[in-house]
Amino acid sequence: MKILVTTVAVALPVAAALAAQAIPEDLRETARATFKALPSTTPAVANNPITREKIALGKAMFFDPRVSASGVFSCNSCHNLATGGDDNRETSIGHGWQKGPRNAPTVLNSVFNIAQFWDGRAEDLKAQAKGPVQASGEMANTPGQLIATLKSMPQYVEWFNAAFPGEADRVTFDNFAKAIEAFEATLITPAPFDHFLNGDDAAMTSEQKQGLALFMDKGCSSCHAGINVGGDGYYPFGLVEKPGADILPEKDKGRFAVTNTPDDAYVFRVAPLRNVALTAPYFHSGKVWDLKQAVAIMGTTQLGEELTQEEVDRLVAFLNSLTGKVPEVAYPILPAETAATPRPVSQILGK
Amino acid sequence: MKILVTTVAVALPVAAALAAQAIPEDLRETARATFKALPSTTPAVANNPITREKIALGKAMFFDPRVSASGVFSCNSCHNLATGGDDNRETSIGHGWQKGPRNAPTVLNSVFNIAQFWDGRAEDLKAQAKGPVQASGEMANTPGQLIATLKSMPQYVEWFNAAFPGEADRVTFDNFAKAIEAFEATLITPAPFDHFLNGDDAAMTSEQKQGLALFMDKGCSSCHAGINVGGDGYYPFGLVEKPGADILPEKDKGRFAVTNTPDDAYVFRVAPLRNVALTAPYFHSGKVWDLKQAVAIMGTTQLGEELTQEEVDRLVAFLNSLTGKVPEVAYPILPAETAATPRPVSQILGK
Repeated sequence: MKILVTTVAVALPVAAALAAQAIPEDLRETARATFKALPSTTPAVANNPITREKIALGKAMFFDPRVSASGVFSCNSCHNLATGGDDNRETSIGHGWQKGPRNAPTVLNSVFNIAQFWDGRAEDLKAQAKGPVQASGEMANTPGQLIATLKSMPQYVEWFNAAFPGEADRVTFDNFAKAIEAFEATLITPAPFDHFLNGDDAAMTSEQKQGLALFMDKGCSSCHAGINVGGDGYYPFGLVEKPGADILPEKDKGRFAVTNTPDDAYVFRVAPLRNVALTAPYFHSGKVWDLKQAVAIMGTTQLGEELTQEEVDRLVAFLNSLTGKVPEVAYPILPAETAATPRPVSQILGK
Repeated sequence: MKILVTTVAVALPVAAALAAQAIPEDLRETARATFKALPSTTPAVANNPITREKIALGKAMFFDPRVSASGVFSCNSCHNLATGGDDNRETSIGHGWQKGPRNAPTVLNSVFNIAQFWDGRAEDLKAQAKGPVQASGEMANTPGQLIATLKSMPQYVEWFNAAFPGEADRVTFDNFAKAIEAFEATLITPAPFDHFLNGDDAAMTSEQKQGLALFMDKGCSSCHAGINVGGDGYYPFGLVEKPGADILPEKDKGRFAVTNTPDDAYVFRVAPLRNVALTAPYFHSGKVWDLKQAVAIMGTTQLGEELTQEEVDRLVAFLNSLTGKVPEVAYPILPAETAATPRPVSQILGK
């Protein structure tokens, strides 16, 4: 399937175009019933009380490339806070220059997703944090080696002691994951859309509001709903019409690999759309770079509808209102290695 | 040659050991004649007036992985401000998982070095900044592709306009390099040693002061002098006795490749020793991980002297007083790509 998004201007004058879709008076009310504004403070997470100490430790480890076997990759390498919380690549590059199987999702606001990874195989961020560390094509590390690395640096041990007081064994893989989760829970990005939901009419432009109305009218919000405008359920990619194999590679059956249920073939966690304007390329395959093209594809595959150029533009205008403010993060100064710190290993296993 | 650094305690009681080397009364004066304290403000650099706008632009580009062809490596990947301004690897890993030929030197205080790179082949940081971007085994980019990348993002163009007002062509490879240099010039790390030089007796411990006295007595400061305690001249590695080929690989003839002068075979820029405790592994080959071992090797190869364990310990105590305070850096939020931004390329040329 080939999607053409032309940039030929539509011949309607602007006034007529605006009139073609008035902004409903109850737009905010309707939107509030479907979406939810981000909180202004760090949310609570299950089984992991958030403390300043945990956040500080988690931040250090999030930025520490020594979490990977090679010393080359940190969490921030693929979930870069400077570039929308992802890495702007089709799929990430990891240990030994191996390419990952799926596009790296943004870490921003990820605490609000129903589960983590494109197939939802990790129930929360603390479960997710254990994945890339051990993946042979990503950080290629082991829990044992990671803990040996952290324990070799007295400053890290002190930070773990402060973050997990009262625990017998503090520097553990579980606590590593919990601290990462605590830091990631702070990465929430209030956007013009939130200010609008909270009552500020001027926060969104008319075109963005029209786009929001259209987003709900067309049924996009049947799947992309909730606090993350997505991220809270599972749906087949190609609900109405499957996209081409370039965009939906046949061998990646999504959630089927998690549930082993035939109905879950090509089912993925609905992409959360916050900051979507910053997180190209799109879809789990990372094959689509243009947000307008991505929206048009969604029209065809999920709604069974060829959206007009004007509709696509309006929807994208709305999506732009989801670009939020990333919290300011001071780049951390990390503990220095000691003689006991395991040396970086760049060899690829079996080579 | 094999260097053994034993950790067997010397049998002298501490008092006797201290008495064995009194701290000279004129230590500060002598040290001031050899070294120089870091300034408290960003220094001026040649042909590149430093402005806030240039620093901000340079910081963004220093942290931007899109400076590399693959979108994987930023300047900060190998010169990581979180870990002493380097990458704690023997040699760095770059495009296509290629290993670099020499250990990555720290960016911290590098503005004060006589020239850049281990062989001094770049006269200043703006010349240096152009190297890794184009090296096929590092960022594997081209100036044309880099400028196309930067020009594709309106925010970068605005930043260049602000940093280089009055210039006809602002987004250029030269200006990229100048902005990087401006940011790097801010990366200076005042240390206890500086406070001591500036008159604070309590800034250094007795052992550190003894180490400083020994550093000058033994002749270490014949080469490691000036504001960066090194970095301001060129000397042969193995002045008295060549280290083994594991540490000084035969095929890397250092500055000989720059000057083509036989006298310059195995000549390198003297390592600047600020933050040396954070920048293992050591030497251009990155083959030595233990600072004590590195000091002992220097004793043999440069001074022709087998240093005692106690001497090594004292020298290392002094070196620890060179660990400074890295300026706080807010992690930047980078401009988002546009449709015109060149896509990341991870293929290796010729493969």
